[in-house]
Amino acid sequence: MRFITYRAGNEECVGIRTGDFYQGRSVAELGYDLKTGLRSSETISAMARDLSMAPKVALKTVDLLPPIPTPDKIICIGLNYREHSEESGFEVPTYPAVFARFASSLVADGDALIRPNASDLLDYEGELVAVIGKGGRHISKEDALDHVAGYSIFNESSVRDYQIKTQQWTIGKAFDGTGAFGPELVTSDELPPGCKGLSLTTRLNDEVVQKASIDDLIFDVAELVSILSEVMTLAPGDVIVTGTPSGVGALRKPPLWLKPGDVCTVEIDSIGKLTNSVQQEVKDS
Amino acid sequence: MRFITYRAGNEECVGIRTGDFYQGRSVAELGYDLKTGLRSSETISAMARDLSMAPKVALKTVDLLPPIPTPDKIICIGLNYREHSEESGFEVPTYPAVFARFASSLVADGDALIRPNASDLLDYEGELVAVIGKGGRHISKEDALDHVAGYSIFNESSVRDYQIKTQQWTIGKAFDGTGAFGPELVTSDELPPGCKGLSLTTRLNDEVVQKASIDDLIFDVAELVSILSEVMTLAPGDVIVTGTPSGVGALRKPPLWLKPGDVCTVEIDSIGKLTNSVQQEVKDS
Repeated sequence: MRFITYRAGNEECVGIRTGDFYQGRSVAELGYDLKTGLRSSETISAMARDLSMAPKVALKTVDLLPPIPTPDKIICIGLNYREHSEESGFEVPTYPAVFARFASSLVADGDALIRPNASDLLDYEGELVAVIGKGGRHISKEDALDHVAGYSIFNESSVRDYQIKTQQWTIGKAFDGTGAFGPELVTSDELPPGCKGLSLTTRLNDEVVQKASIDDLIFDVAELVSILSEVMTLAPGDVIVTGTPSGVGALRKPPLWLKPGDVCTVEIDSIGKLTNSVQQEVKDS
Repeated sequence: MRFITYRAGNEECVGIRTGDFYQGRSVAELGYDLKTGLRSSETISAMARDLSMAPKVALKTVDLLPPIPTPDKIICIGLNYREHSEESGFEVPTYPAVFARFASSLVADGDALIRPNASDLLDYEGELVAVIGKGGRHISKEDALDHVAGYSIFNESSVRDYQIKTQQWTIGKAFDGTGAFGPELVTSDELPPGCKGLSLTTRLNDEVVQKASIDDLIFDVAELVSILSEVMTLAPGDVIVTGTPSGVGALRKPPLWLKPGDVCTVEIDSIGKLTNSVQQEVKDS
């Protein structure tokens, strides 16, 4: 199943997408949002049933939101592809580098990524997202994928000079309008376990700038869920942004920065394609 | 005014505290939570009025929650006192080191801090908290304190070996039951601007282990609000945990770690005292 979250008027709505159509209802009508609906395989089935009774609407009219607009946690993993870790001058890590994003940085598929007035050094990072369904703590690697409700795509775009103002990267990942997430959540049953074998491709203005197999993750999805849950209770709708492969703009010679008018896409086989243009921050926004 | 958030049965409630009594109502009855009630000086006054009509109850019976149990953002600042930055072997920073906490790590005043089974290296960090009222972006330093609804106290306890597993500290600050926050939110009008001149004291089993003046912050509250809002839109209830002074346990010789049965308090003049015992994580929690 392919779930979307979207806006109709001022209301947040959840829908199920099939081909060029979706069927959806408002969170107010449903009594739950996608985050809550993902909490078990039973509630996922119930959600699909609830939504399948709604009228079919043409997808092209939809105003998407990120699949989970306000996750309890957006857990980002750095340096999780061997080649990217090496291009960044780091040794291949023995424990994942974890940082956080705030939901205030999120935009949906079709929205613009915002180059801030504070810096021109905005860079793309195409990534696979795992979204937690059933929550838990101390989840074994063997059980881990049972806790993943589905997958999506992220463009974890980063303001590089802010990212390295101190050792802590978070501020460079916190700018409004820099975390593109979507277009939809694809449930785990539609994809290979842990998305193994799938290919991720980032394109800037139709030119391929990142290409990797999900098999190249240093810490795969099952390991990440297990490692993170040693520390914290994972909750339904928690988002794990699994890291970006080599090819980021900052490390090219010469560097390649996102600029207004660019279009950046991140595509993962069988999951979909996340498309965002780039706009300059409106002055005094 | 001194606002608390507490639990009654399964309900989250908001109260106003005067002396040994509080007056409170459930979020369901009120139609808003403390986070939402803080969004302007008008809504803060309205909240105080709503709550003052509730019956007076003895404070000793209350089951506190963190003042904001689920902030949209918990923004933590590292190395923000000169002496602590020096004891940590870092140069005095020219930009604040920013990392995040997840709300899943929060506990209230009176709750236990949890030493995880994964590590014995749990350390205290007493800190001043600024809570955003009116939201905004690109807030000038001059206007910044108008956006702070009030102040509270944090024990930003940290699992030190996890904190330095990679360059990114977030994982060492993410353990369940390690972020003590409370006991209450004191509105800005009751305190000196930016809490200037107030003294912070952390005690472990009644012995003073950290003592500093809020004047010693490298980046004061107004600067933090302004610097952070250059990057991101601050929202009502966002929590800025402003950093810890020197005296942390990890850097003592020999190191001083929190252990089950300890009692740790963080006190800030005119704001109050945050008290937490330490318990070992229950096995297979």
